[in-house]
Amino acid sequence: MLVRPKQGILDPQGAAVEGSLRKLGFPVSSVRVGKVIDLEVQADGQDDARKHVERMCEALLANPLIESVEIQIEEE
Amino acid sequence: MLVRPKQGILDPQGAAVEGSLRKLGFPVSSVRVGKVIDLEVQADGQDDARKHVERMCEALLANPLIESVEIQIEEE
Repeated sequence: MLVRPKQGILDPQGAAVEGSLRKLGFPVSSVRVGKVIDLEVQADGQDDARKHVERMCEALLANPLIESVEIQIEEE
Repeated sequence: MLVRPKQGILDPQGAAVEGSLRKLGFPVSSVRVGKVIDLEVQADGQDDARKHVERMCEALLANPLIESVEIQIEEE
């Protein structure tokens, strides 16, 4: 899953990276930094896995006020 | 782009998240935490953009000893 700062929300880490890249001469106009969280979950199929991950987001992994979440499920 | 701790490399943030999720009762067997970095880059096409991002990785964004990088390019 990907957890990103929502549009309009301050992203100091992204701003710092953007400043450093510009100082190094790279042609960047925007940088946003979020998290990629790779989870192995025991579940009965993809729907069940997605529900588990959604509950994990609510309980711990993301703050819905300031972060947006993108969930990708892969079966093993 | 996605920057993840390489397999076999200690990931204390992932271990902490895994422990917390288990305490909350979630059926997780592995958690790894990395970074998603969304960059807007001025470039002449996708190949040029990829080269820029690869150079940014070498210069600042990733440590090849301990991190693996996955670059995805989208055109605007």
